[in-house]
Amino acid sequence: MITIREVAEQAGVSVATVSRVLNNHPSSSEKARLAVQSAVEKLGYHPNANAQALASQTSETIGVVVTDVTDPFFAILVKAVDKVAETHQKTILIGIGYHNAEKERKAIDTLLRKRCSCLVVHSKALSDDELRGYLARISGMVIINRVVQGYENRCVSLDNKKGTFLATETLIRLGHKHIGYIGSNHQITDETERIKGYLTALEHYHIPVSEHFIAHSSPDFEGGEEAMINLLSYNSDLTAVVAYNDSMAAGAISVLNENNINVPKQFSIIGFDDMPIARYLIPKLTTIRYPIDLMATYAANLALSLVDNKVKKPVHIQFNPTLVRRFSTENFL
Amino acid sequence: MITIREVAEQAGVSVATVSRVLNNHPSSSEKARLAVQSAVEKLGYHPNANAQALASQTSETIGVVVTDVTDPFFAILVKAVDKVAETHQKTILIGIGYHNAEKERKAIDTLLRKRCSCLVVHSKALSDDELRGYLARISGMVIINRVVQGYENRCVSLDNKKGTFLATETLIRLGHKHIGYIGSNHQITDETERIKGYLTALEHYHIPVSEHFIAHSSPDFEGGEEAMINLLSYNSDLTAVVAYNDSMAAGAISVLNENNINVPKQFSIIGFDDMPIARYLIPKLTTIRYPIDLMATYAANLALSLVDNKVKKPVHIQFNPTLVRRFSTENFL
Repeated sequence: MITIREVAEQAGVSVATVSRVLNNHPSSSEKARLAVQSAVEKLGYHPNANAQALASQTSETIGVVVTDVTDPFFAILVKAVDKVAETHQKTILIGIGYHNAEKERKAIDTLLRKRCSCLVVHSKALSDDELRGYLARISGMVIINRVVQGYENRCVSLDNKKGTFLATETLIRLGHKHIGYIGSNHQITDETERIKGYLTALEHYHIPVSEHFIAHSSPDFEGGEEAMINLLSYNSDLTAVVAYNDSMAAGAISVLNENNINVPKQFSIIGFDDMPIARYLIPKLTTIRYPIDLMATYAANLALSLVDNKVKKPVHIQFNPTLVRRFSTENFL
Repeated sequence: MITIREVAEQAGVSVATVSRVLNNHPSSSEKARLAVQSAVEKLGYHPNANAQALASQTSETIGVVVTDVTDPFFAILVKAVDKVAETHQKTILIGIGYHNAEKERKAIDTLLRKRCSCLVVHSKALSDDELRGYLARISGMVIINRVVQGYENRCVSLDNKKGTFLATETLIRLGHKHIGYIGSNHQITDETERIKGYLTALEHYHIPVSEHFIAHSSPDFEGGEEAMINLLSYNSDLTAVVAYNDSMAAGAISVLNENNINVPKQFSIIGFDDMPIARYLIPKLTTIRYPIDLMATYAANLALSLVDNKVKKPVHIQFNPTLVRRFSTENFL
């Protein structure tokens, strides 16, 4: 690596002059500036960001912790934070937690050691207590997709229960009376809230529910296939299903198709998240929109504001799910 | 942020002792180690990675430049590099180039300023000359999905032409004689090589081609829809299509479905990349596998080896595309 000393030598000026020019100090002469710029270009010198960060004790990076970048949900989250970082001439550092407490902890600790003062964290494996510990210490840390008591105003979340209530209500209003639920087997609040929304809607409209109307599996395409097979094995009267997410809905549609059950003519299905896959399915999927792009943008801006002390008392913000009506749901006659 | 000085004060030892303990120096006593560890835990101290990086002039991060994390191709690339980083107790820093020369340059420069000595770069917008400049300067830089002349042994690529040759040959062997091509309108070598593979296969098997058998659009779902509509408008005798990638194939299937053309009974379609979406489509997509996970793993390990001077003369490696036969292709009778 080229050092500032070599640049000074090449330019025939002092190290202090090089430093002044690189930091746009007003006292550097035009002649010095040209000499330094030419030396920098000739040598391919890059100012050392680690030294700059050390000097200022802050970092030009925003840290992001997600579960898995190959899940489109997290890719969209990361991209939204990157867009915010870009408008503030910052970059992002990514830590990946893979649904594992130890890896989530390591991801956060690594970002802290790199002096990320702003953090947007998606954590499902760490306890509330442990997250409270981090939140108490790191003023620029914001939690996304989870509410940690005592720090509600630094948590950006979605009303999951309202989402599945809306999904179930949509099917009820289309005339369906035997509505199943395909849930995630991960023990996280997303699942407990979403199944609650489904059950609450059925209760509200006096629609009976059977334990065999509910199947759990992994929250992906294969899990959706498995859960749908289980529902079909147990029930012959189901006409509709609310799925935990779009990937599970896609797996369910695939199984229905293989069993010659037409979606939506014979069977209605509704997803959750509104990921790109929802638009690529045949039929295009009716789903509940999870505005993760808006939420991640809000979270990143909040983290930046907290560090700059621009926001003294942020309010707790919970985003709303909305229905996106496409072609996988139809009237039950 | 807690400083090393505060840790020393809490532990009742000197700053030098804290530093020795944190760096596992053999001369630190057991008593000092315990005192420092307890102080570190009590205060929640994190060693400053910027200072460590500055001292060693290397970084514990591997830099990755990709075009867009929300494209599954790049998400899989990033995840593979992260896995390699993890096995070496390193983390990754991500720069996003968005198909734009200025942003690609900025992404690389930012990673360099952060003293990433290992870089895995996916660049399509920068010129060969500019990349050669970086490669000459940065010994731990590896290019993925592109071949830069003069640095072939630090480029990890796929034989794209062979992939579409294989795809087209598969359709020819199934009896298809009117085979279209849906290509990308991005002017990058991936497209020029893929269309060449399609044309070469037709020529090899003496199958005539018409300019109206070829349509270009954006390399995504919507582009696939548009290109397929154009092909259907121009031709009434096409029975099969080779698509630039799986997303375009998905868009094409959607249009065929809306026009009551059954895939695969009346029309065969074959994708490229073998992204997760290929398995979720109805019918599941026959496609060409692009082993981006293996390639990114290889590239990250190569970058690490180059920095450690473990590899003096790496060989140029070009990966092979392979056919994944699913249900979107059938005999033309």
